[in-house]
Amino acid sequence: MADNNTLDRNETQDMISSAKVEGTAVYGRDGEKIGSIHHLMLGKRDGKVRHAVVSYGGFLGMGEDYFPLPWNELSYDEERSGYVVQRDADQLRGGPHYARDHEPVWDRAYEAQVTGYYA
Amino acid sequence: MADNNTLDRNETQDMISSAKVEGTAVYGRDGEKIGSIHHLMLGKRDGKVRHAVVSYGGFLGMGEDYFPLPWNELSYDEERSGYVVQRDADQLRGGPHYARDHEPVWDRAYEAQVTGYYA
Repeated sequence: MADNNTLDRNETQDMISSAKVEGTAVYGRDGEKIGSIHHLMLGKRDGKVRHAVVSYGGFLGMGEDYFPLPWNELSYDEERSGYVVQRDADQLRGGPHYARDHEPVWDRAYEAQVTGYYA
Repeated sequence: MADNNTLDRNETQDMISSAKVEGTAVYGRDGEKIGSIHHLMLGKRDGKVRHAVVSYGGFLGMGEDYFPLPWNELSYDEERSGYVVQRDADQLRGGPHYARDHEPVWDRAYEAQVTGYYA
């Protein structure tokens, strides 16, 4: 992890800014770019990131799909300046996802669906 | 909490989108607007929100100060469409803060300073 002299102003050894996480690229195990993190879903009571929602596909913001991933699927790769997920691209694209304006109700059933797929 | 028929697309009974949290107004105990949430600081390993960084003051983005608050200081108030902190404005303004481009190193010492102030 970077030492204090090279720390990005939005990072520290221990913490990272949500503004920096949003928009960060996400790569699959084979190095292919999956998409980028669009936003995070946070548990209201415990303030814990339940899912990182990765946006994928589309053109100029149109036609994008959104793929929720459990937070612990992501590992930051300094060389790529992005997150790596230890999954193949096909496996990721087969995961739960939704189109813009078709957001699911984020209830326990949906959360279990996401967690179950990546278990 | 809102039922499924009135759920905002970025919310659910259990979770909230980081994109929605960012920019939300923050009010003190007396109803005075403190500022708005600029971004969140997340623990990298556990993905837990350590601080909500509230921006306050300034004009057109200039001269703003940033005040980290522990996540558990915030309660969402449906009527105000914003977060309420059970502190007086003076107490909040006396808390740890920094100016734009003078971000602290987010190490354990700084985190302890923030947590200690709001203990």
